[in-house]
Amino acid sequence: MSIRKGTLLGVRDDIRVMDVTIRDGGLCNNFGFTDEFVSELYKTNVKSGVDYMEFGYKASKNMFNEKDYGKWKFCNEDDLRAIVGDNDTSMKIAVMADVGRCDYKTDFLPKSESVIDMVRVACYVHQMSAAVEMIEHFNSLGYETTCNIMAVSQVSSEQILQALEMLSKSSVDVIYLVDSFGSLYPENACELAQKYVEVAAQNGKIAGFHAHNNQNLAFANTIETMSYGVSYLDASIQGMGRGAGNCAMELLLGFLKNPKYNVYNLLEFIEKHMLPLKEQGVKWGYDVPYMLTGLFNRHPRSAIEFTSENRKDYSDFYKQILEND
Amino acid sequence: MSIRKGTLLGVRDDIRVMDVTIRDGGLCNNFGFTDEFVSELYKTNVKSGVDYMEFGYKASKNMFNEKDYGKWKFCNEDDLRAIVGDNDTSMKIAVMADVGRCDYKTDFLPKSESVIDMVRVACYVHQMSAAVEMIEHFNSLGYETTCNIMAVSQVSSEQILQALEMLSKSSVDVIYLVDSFGSLYPENACELAQKYVEVAAQNGKIAGFHAHNNQNLAFANTIETMSYGVSYLDASIQGMGRGAGNCAMELLLGFLKNPKYNVYNLLEFIEKHMLPLKEQGVKWGYDVPYMLTGLFNRHPRSAIEFTSENRKDYSDFYKQILEND
Repeated sequence: MSIRKGTLLGVRDDIRVMDVTIRDGGLCNNFGFTDEFVSELYKTNVKSGVDYMEFGYKASKNMFNEKDYGKWKFCNEDDLRAIVGDNDTSMKIAVMADVGRCDYKTDFLPKSESVIDMVRVACYVHQMSAAVEMIEHFNSLGYETTCNIMAVSQVSSEQILQALEMLSKSSVDVIYLVDSFGSLYPENACELAQKYVEVAAQNGKIAGFHAHNNQNLAFANTIETMSYGVSYLDASIQGMGRGAGNCAMELLLGFLKNPKYNVYNLLEFIEKHMLPLKEQGVKWGYDVPYMLTGLFNRHPRSAIEFTSENRKDYSDFYKQILEND
Repeated sequence: MSIRKGTLLGVRDDIRVMDVTIRDGGLCNNFGFTDEFVSELYKTNVKSGVDYMEFGYKASKNMFNEKDYGKWKFCNEDDLRAIVGDNDTSMKIAVMADVGRCDYKTDFLPKSESVIDMVRVACYVHQMSAAVEMIEHFNSLGYETTCNIMAVSQVSSEQILQALEMLSKSSVDVIYLVDSFGSLYPENACELAQKYVEVAAQNGKIAGFHAHNNQNLAFANTIETMSYGVSYLDASIQGMGRGAGNCAMELLLGFLKNPKYNVYNLLEFIEKHMLPLKEQGVKWGYDVPYMLTGLFNRHPRSAIEFTSENRKDYSDFYKQILEND
């Protein structure tokens, strides 16, 4: 066990917790959160010791009509400031920029004029060159950057190593292992994480992990990859996120032993703000159809459709997935 | 990683899967399953490749009135045979006998006259002498036996080692690590499992694992302890079991690579029999109050009560748990 970093009782000073509720959870309700919800979540995160809060995407307004989405798909500076003011807290603000779906050359202010601290660049392995270009741009503007390489469970080890190699020569600060389809088990998640950690450490960078809960492994994979040296940990309140959702923040803060993290305030937020969301019919979280797409290492879109139609014919869905091969 | 046993793609011939739906799930509905449910589950388990099906408890009729419970709290031979006949299948039949709550000297037939194959003796560490006496009795009657040592997260390593030492000298076949409160993380579950596996292997015995899902780790802990050499794996359909429930059978059979295990039939059973159970109001599964008792390493009874009252004041419950210290 000696390659594990830290102990179950100790504090790891390198750990940073990122709340992705609005960004990944926004995929469940078209970013239709009330200002009160976002404002209370912001205050809750600050009180809970969360290190970063991701407010949403910086999506291209040429590709997406602002009228069709809630404001957190675009994260305009004014909208952010309406919630956080000058963000006079120790918690940092992050946004996500998707390769190919972001006008990154025009839509970002220099860091000195923005309340945003970090830009997270999400891409597939084949978009790595484009991702690096964006990272260099955001770095030159003064932002912290991450690269979140998605869907790595469907690409070869060689492609992953090439991507890590390219990132190691870039200005990126944090390299994220992303289990997009919730198909990784602790054992292979940790093997991958060790590669990310190794390349990151050799190049003065840091590794992160973003889980999905298709096989009910989001929390387990998060704390297990953490034990092998991953430092940046994504989570969301009650795991709110696309499809089966993410690692639950309340589980993660319960687990972490640094006294700066506090689970109590999250419980109040869940009572007052998450339960009403579920009652309104916003859907996410572990269920049989997501388990099946995770098991078969597929994009969750068919399971999201199945769930949105309130279908329960799981055995037919099983056949449907395999027939679409 | 070399101490891991097997690979993610290979078959482990030592693996045995135990369905505990009726026994642990019976704690959610007072064992009030219909005969149709139990019969269909039996057929489903056989078709799915499950190795053992646990039908319930052999509870003392002196201590518990048969009128107050469903029949699977007692597992009378006639009731078992009404479902399984002579059980002319490759799946074995198990029942549980609790130390101190079972008239074991009078209530068991010799194996040659019973359809039961295995008796699982459940006990706390301080009941180990009584457990060994029962194990020797069941062994002399011709049954396979297990010892399920409960609540080990609340006792010292020395006590666990003493218990393992006593069992190693007994006739017991399988020694179960039981995470009664769902408080173990993969890292410490695997450390404990390695002790169990080591003692078991040195004495010609086998190790098993029984999970609870309080912190959404039941499946993760099951496959992780398995990777460190545990062979007998408990699971239940949709994780049905007391409080936060157990490892979900559909996740486990999806994970296992032996082609004898088949998840498809479980999906049909879930559609036809588990969804109606949930609609009737039978409650189990991961939720915030169980997370808190797991996090604080407590018996789930207060969380079960909280949930049964449909309370949602999680933050008050948090304070309540800590005040009861």
